[in-house]
Amino acid sequence: MDHYDIYCGGKFITTNEALEVINPYDQQVFATTSRAGSAELEVAIERAQNVEEEMATMPGWKRTSILREMAAALEKDSQWHARLLAQEAGKPMVHAVSEVKRAVQTLRVAAEEARRLPGEHLSMDWTPAGEGKEAWVKHFPVGLVAAIAPFNFPLNLAVHKVAPALAAGCPVILKPASSTPLSTLALARIAHQTALPKGALSVLPMNRQSGNQLVTDQRFKLLTFTGSPEVGWEMKKNAGKKKVVLELGGNAGIIISKDTDLDTCMPKCITGAFAYSGQVCIHAQRIFVEAPVFDVFLERFVEEAKNLALGDPMKTDTDMSVMIDENNARRVTDWVSEAKQQGAKVLCGGGRYKTMVEPTILTNTNNQMKVNALEAFGPVVTVEPFSHFYQALEMVNDSRYGLQAGVFTNSISRMKQAWEKLEVGGVIINDAPTFRTDHMPYGGVKESGLGREGVKYAIMDMMEPRVMVF
Amino acid sequence: MDHYDIYCGGKFITTNEALEVINPYDQQVFATTSRAGSAELEVAIERAQNVEEEMATMPGWKRTSILREMAAALEKDSQWHARLLAQEAGKPMVHAVSEVKRAVQTLRVAAEEARRLPGEHLSMDWTPAGEGKEAWVKHFPVGLVAAIAPFNFPLNLAVHKVAPALAAGCPVILKPASSTPLSTLALARIAHQTALPKGALSVLPMNRQSGNQLVTDQRFKLLTFTGSPEVGWEMKKNAGKKKVVLELGGNAGIIISKDTDLDTCMPKCITGAFAYSGQVCIHAQRIFVEAPVFDVFLERFVEEAKNLALGDPMKTDTDMSVMIDENNARRVTDWVSEAKQQGAKVLCGGGRYKTMVEPTILTNTNNQMKVNALEAFGPVVTVEPFSHFYQALEMVNDSRYGLQAGVFTNSISRMKQAWEKLEVGGVIINDAPTFRTDHMPYGGVKESGLGREGVKYAIMDMMEPRVMVF
Amino acid sequence: MDHYDIYCGGKFITTNEALEVINPYDQQVFATTSRAGSAELEVAIERAQNVEEEMATMPGWKRTSILREMAAALEKDSQWHARLLAQEAGKPMVHAVSEVKRAVQTLRVAAEEARRLPGEHLSMDWTPAGEGKEAWVKHFPVGLVAAIAPFNFPLNLAVHKVAPALAAGCPVILKPASSTPLSTLALARIAHQTALPKGALSVLPMNRQSGNQLVTDQRFKLLTFTGSPEVGWEMKKNAGKKKVVLELGGNAGIIISKDTDLDTCMPKCITGAFAYSGQVCIHAQRIFVEAPVFDVFLERFVEEAKNLALGDPMKTDTDMSVMIDENNARRVTDWVSEAKQQGAKVLCGGGRYKTMVEPTILTNTNNQMKVNALEAFGPVVTVEPFSHFYQALEMVNDSRYGLQAGVFTNSISRMKQAWEKLEVGGVIINDAPTFRTDHMPYGGVKESGLGREGVKYAIMDMMEPRVMVF
Amino acid sequence: MDHYDIYCGGKFITTNEALEVINPYDQQVFATTSRAGSAELEVAIERAQNVEEEMATMPGWKRTSILREMAAALEKDSQWHARLLAQEAGKPMVHAVSEVKRAVQTLRVAAEEARRLPGEHLSMDWTPAGEGKEAWVKHFPVGLVAAIAPFNFPLNLAVHKVAPALAAGCPVILKPASSTPLSTLALARIAHQTALPKGALSVLPMNRQSGNQLVTDQRFKLLTFTGSPEVGWEMKKNAGKKKVVLELGGNAGIIISKDTDLDTCMPKCITGAFAYSGQVCIHAQRIFVEAPVFDVFLERFVEEAKNLALGDPMKTDTDMSVMIDENNARRVTDWVSEAKQQGAKVLCGGGRYKTMVEPTILTNTNNQMKVNALEAFGPVVTVEPFSHFYQALEMVNDSRYGLQAGVFTNSISRMKQAWEKLEVGGVIINDAPTFRTDHMPYGGVKESGLGREGVKYAIMDMMEPRVMVF
Repeated sequence: MDHYDIYCGGKFITTNEALEVINPYDQQVFATTSRAGSAELEVAIERAQNVEEEMATMPGWKRTSILREMAAALEKDSQWHARLLAQEAGKPMVHAVSEVKRAVQTLRVAAEEARRLPGEHLSMDWTPAGEGKEAWVKHFPVGLVAAIAPFNFPLNLAVHKVAPALAAGCPVILKPASSTPLSTLALARIAHQTALPKGALSVLPMNRQSGNQLVTDQRFKLLTFTGSPEVGWEMKKNAGKKKVVLELGGNAGIIISKDTDLDTCMPKCITGAFAYSGQVCIHAQRIFVEAPVFDVFLERFVEEAKNLALGDPMKTDTDMSVMIDENNARRVTDWVSEAKQQGAKVLCGGGRYKTMVEPTILTNTNNQMKVNALEAFGPVVTVEPFSHFYQALEMVNDSRYGLQAGVFTNSISRMKQAWEKLEVGGVIINDAPTFRTDHMPYGGVKESGLGREGVKYAIMDMMEPRVMVF
Repeated sequence: MDHYDIYCGGKFITTNEALEVINPYDQQVFATTSRAGSAELEVAIERAQNVEEEMATMPGWKRTSILREMAAALEKDSQWHARLLAQEAGKPMVHAVSEVKRAVQTLRVAAEEARRLPGEHLSMDWTPAGEGKEAWVKHFPVGLVAAIAPFNFPLNLAVHKVAPALAAGCPVILKPASSTPLSTLALARIAHQTALPKGALSVLPMNRQSGNQLVTDQRFKLLTFTGSPEVGWEMKKNAGKKKVVLELGGNAGIIISKDTDLDTCMPKCITGAFAYSGQVCIHAQRIFVEAPVFDVFLERFVEEAKNLALGDPMKTDTDMSVMIDENNARRVTDWVSEAKQQGAKVLCGGGRYKTMVEPTILTNTNNQMKVNALEAFGPVVTVEPFSHFYQALEMVNDSRYGLQAGVFTNSISRMKQAWEKLEVGGVIINDAPTFRTDHMPYGGVKESGLGREGVKYAIMDMMEPRVMVF
Repeated sequence: MDHYDIYCGGKFITTNEALEVINPYDQQVFATTSRAGSAELEVAIERAQNVEEEMATMPGWKRTSILREMAAALEKDSQWHARLLAQEAGKPMVHAVSEVKRAVQTLRVAAEEARRLPGEHLSMDWTPAGEGKEAWVKHFPVGLVAAIAPFNFPLNLAVHKVAPALAAGCPVILKPASSTPLSTLALARIAHQTALPKGALSVLPMNRQSGNQLVTDQRFKLLTFTGSPEVGWEMKKNAGKKKVVLELGGNAGIIISKDTDLDTCMPKCITGAFAYSGQVCIHAQRIFVEAPVFDVFLERFVEEAKNLALGDPMKTDTDMSVMIDENNARRVTDWVSEAKQQGAKVLCGGGRYKTMVEPTILTNTNNQMKVNALEAFGPVVTVEPFSHFYQALEMVNDSRYGLQAGVFTNSISRMKQAWEKLEVGGVIINDAPTFRTDHMPYGGVKESGLGREGVKYAIMDMMEPRVMVF
Repeated sequence: MDHYDIYCGGKFITTNEALEVINPYDQQVFATTSRAGSAELEVAIERAQNVEEEMATMPGWKRTSILREMAAALEKDSQWHARLLAQEAGKPMVHAVSEVKRAVQTLRVAAEEARRLPGEHLSMDWTPAGEGKEAWVKHFPVGLVAAIAPFNFPLNLAVHKVAPALAAGCPVILKPASSTPLSTLALARIAHQTALPKGALSVLPMNRQSGNQLVTDQRFKLLTFTGSPEVGWEMKKNAGKKKVVLELGGNAGIIISKDTDLDTCMPKCITGAFAYSGQVCIHAQRIFVEAPVFDVFLERFVEEAKNLALGDPMKTDTDMSVMIDENNARRVTDWVSEAKQQGAKVLCGGGRYKTMVEPTILTNTNNQMKVNALEAFGPVVTVEPFSHFYQALEMVNDSRYGLQAGVFTNSISRMKQAWEKLEVGGVIINDAPTFRTDHMPYGGVKESGLGREGVKYAIMDMMEPRVMVF
């Protein structure tokens, strides 16, 4: 069985707190690693602080070159990394391959941005008081970053924290999810081969106490967390003086207008709803269909959901596989049962075998049901009709969350309304809310988060502006 | 009869070359002024050069304050200015009032932009060669500007040259059209009352020789011309080393999709086609209507054109009045007659009484006819049907000009196609091509011009970037 | 005695909780107003929410026009407003007049920015996944803003919250300091006369309970606080999900290089140290002088400090007057005495008469003394020598705060080092750290704050980006 | 002897007009190629037009990928390319290697910029007329580009035209200098291996007639020329409607302040003056030294100039080699003799052996002498003293040219004055005017040119903005 050392302050080490990594598909342990305790975290923090100035003053070409090297190394062995990822996350290979590809792209975008940190020029002669002066603004790294990554995109969502930090010139200590620590430990091996100062990156699975310290320790200047809303907002409270960036979840909606071409729209809805068993922050959980096409949409949507190939994530023809663990799988099917009892109609799915939950489609639901009101983070989607477009907008907005929304329409006026009215971070026209590229601003409003990722935006949060007047 | 002194190097003077100003409606001389010859131009140039450095180093707040004062003074007497403009240009009061209002806005936009000249920051450490250095870019005024304004918007199109020049810190010598010199001479009186250094602005109607010197004299660092394509392109040849900005004409097209609401669209098409007798650079000259609504559009369009109130520009209920002179009026009706002989159908108009040409609508035309191929600059418009949207785009593009185009549609895909494919400076969705606001980039491609106006853009052309590496 | 109604949800009202306003110079009550309790706050919140959508969708020209009107009205009666401000804050008229002028400017800057909210265009075709798509970003108001303003600039620091909120399209509830509520209540009277929707602005002095609710109530989407570090950081903890902007204090440093022209530098140091009795966030508290000029600087600095005219704030020739209350005055002289006992040398000042503290200069101090380590917020300054420039930088940085710093030098290399190394929000070359214009980014790092003000920057914090991909 | 086919419309061909390529060091023909006549140019134009739309609509990732591939291929064989370049240009290997490296960088910068073409957002609601509308600006390629490159940087200055054109989506026909056609023909071989549409790039040495057609043919939408001022300005006259970008020469100045560290400054002055025998647009031709250090500077400068190793460009320890041909070499020594007769003192150099001219330093010169007044473009430099800084600025400005200037100083006030007053495109503080990186804006004012290169800036000239209002 493979063992992965954890990456602590520039050294690969093993602690006396062992961590077994389970393949969620067969529930077997397939690799081991360790958890970091307070002692290891302390070492990581100290070594990070040692290289803080070196990182802050590293010239752009060198930061670029380190990030490019990491991208190249990841690309070279992308199949290997994809398999590792598929195994620890139970993610179908087709999606695992795509995630590795995106992580490569995220690193490359960061490599470019590292040399393009914005400066600003200000005329100061707006009043006689500033005559003869001018002002320039540059951005300087905040210092040590604490990064907490989720299990669902164990590689790319971690890279969305690590790459901007390195581009900005901040050392970073990354805590991967305990269920999926290996992809980022493999990334650490790559980083270790580059000219990155030792200590600038640590990758540490942690026990609860150390994890809490990432939030509370004042030596961290910024905490960036991707995970569940409950945990995230609690962290904000305890974070002290540091800046906090939260990328949380949602219950994203799709609006289908009656003029939509179903051939184009259907595969996007299917992917949006069921890819990686819906364990995606921008998973399409609620679909609103304009009344005249509601029946035909629903029939076809159920049919295509039934045709999805369920199975072993390691097989390349598997469409959908398991959830991350049995607790989560059970939670999802419980919510479906509860909705059913409250009057919902289950059009397909609802069943579970250990960690595997069938693609599940409900209608006749209401907004009090957990399948609508909370973040499902599972392969379950509700489909309801609407009569007027403004109602559809209201239905999407009738949520505590606001991450992204998809709107299928060819109408300019609907597009404008959707942009003006939808309370979300991103409005995706003619695609699922699940659409994301790695250089676009990404993040939520309401309870879905605070701040934006998407390399350039993450970098800006990791820097402080400093004006010079002269 | 009123006499207007010309404004030469900070002084109001009269030359021995008298210029009579005619009201194109009643063809009567109603005011006199002078033309500047070489001697006056020489004085203006020398005084401008004397204040070049003062202008270049004037603090932002002061440039802002001068431009604001000019705006306030113009606004205060806007009715008076509108009447003067209506009289010299034969422009209906409703449009004259609106032009003065826009000139006020143009001055105010310039007042803001004067303090917002962009600076740029460049990281120089992209390669080891630039390590430890950084670069900043500021923009500096080019120097003396020669501005030639047209008769059709005698105030606002002149302000679109004068205001950016003053905002940029360039002295400027303005030659108004000989037929409409008074509006800008009145503006000169306003400028004279402000803290603007004497000599920074001259307003000089000119004889041909002096006019040519604006093009050829190397002491001018930039020539900005609004007028006819033939004259403009010839100037480019003779301009020597100076920069040249050309705002020329076109034969702007409108596309009407079958889903268009005619109630909204119709008044915009009427205004686009007939406002100020079509003597507008972005006058809607060619309308393409999707086949299914061609007949209904055309019927209604003709009906509304017939309802336009023709008459004295000084009356506030006049919709349309005369053309600038009889030569131009005759030219337009000749083109219509020629088109008719070649098979075009004249649905209304075609008649002329001295300088007044009726609103004229043709169909059954082809692209060889002058009414389509050349710039009509008169109240004539052709209307033709199309079957497929891509054909409509091709029809608009089948022109030597490319200023703006209007596209009525509610389709996102048509909007995207129009933006990608129309060879113009501006695509106006759901409005006439005649739409313009004074802070948007405005200018043409192909034979319609070179460079862009719209205060901020005009300012940039009047400045040179200067990078400092340190 | 004048009575000022408080401004609650668009109405001027009096509550049963009276608040007396004292002139800190003669300690006499000169006006009365009220405090808002929970009931009034509830009304204000509800009315604000009622106009939230109207504010969010108000066109740019209208927001601009409201803010311009406010500026004009304030300017028109600026002497009256200055006297009111001088009286409630004990601020010498010369500074009160200047503050009103700056508040006018802040409103005007906001009026311009209201129409210039940035949009961003993103090419999406960086990977084949985004081919055929593009993305646009616009910014939308966050919603209801809670603003807490300090006593020291009772007008302009409140305007720095209110004006950006209105420019961004956010309703705002402002809590002025209880000691200086009148200047903003007078501003409310101005706002009430404009087209601003009633309810979009409330100005409410509050009791402790209502004040706390501004922090904790989840209906506020952003809390912007200017005040003391202790209070500010505590608020961040309790703010729940809302965004928090903190403009806190500091112990700003000045570095005097040996090549500095003392004639130019001296008045700036005097103003930086003693203007408004040092009750300024960027008050110059610590001066570091290069050894060769230490003695000559110090001698002259002490001499000029002794020459300051102390007295009645209402007199125009008063340089320096009182502190806001006796507690604060006593605190400052206690710190000075303590420092003296610990070995510091008091070169001038140290005395107190009721609320008036003399301009006080110390040397021979160390970093443990409160006069250096904490924010003095009084007319006390320490002066110490340095040998090498890097030491001076370290001395400035040896602080828990980091707002602004002043560096007097003509050396490019020192300027570059200062910009790279000083841990502050703003480096002011050849001026005191006290230098600020209202459109520059302003705010601190370390314990001096979170986020930036300076109209444009404040607006951005009050908005959320929303990307549209299509 | 090697033969190089020319690259015409996607095919490598030979014409019946042979062109022999001579090594300027030994004056021997070492390779042959052909010249294109009208027939070949016609083919190139037609094939370019055929792929114009394909180029314009190519997604960003693909343009990026083509340019990256070109960079990688050039880098892989960089030694080979450097030797080819050294041979045809007589450029010492150390500089030839560096030029190839920079060309790689230029291609990489273009690869990044290809995906970062700027879009602009405009709020249209500045007046009620624009309420409910907004505007977005994108940039579209101008179409076919004619590029004329000089002999002195036969690779990188050609890449500065080709790479931006491909990044912008414009097909381009490149005419290399007849003396140095091989480096770009070698580049064409690289481009031919990529996915670049055949016809999008032609590299054609030309006879005079074809060369003229690049200027006059209206199918070219932009002419970008790097070369001598006389030729460039003449082209502007004959260019018809097309846009023209001119990168011409100058007689760049350096200012040495008395506080300058000569150890740092000296090698930069030597390189600025003598690298590639001064055949560099930003060659340092005039050095102004503050009086107190004039003698010591001059003595050392002459000494170091005398130490330069002259010889075969193919040897890696050669500092300086030949000029491009005997005519030019003779011209330079003639100017020196003439200056001497007019009273100049020749401190070193002045001699010539065939194409090799010695490093030549003059003093006691005046501004009428050709060595100061014209562009020397040879290894000759004049050194004169100055007393006051403002005089030095005037001396630099006393020139018909204005490309770049170098200023050695540690004074902030001198830096500010230099930036404000020097009439040049670039002010280089503490380095020679010869400093350039490939992503910075580069170009001249006065007779030194029109427009800017530096990838991003060149791209913008090759595109037209198109606003969409909707």
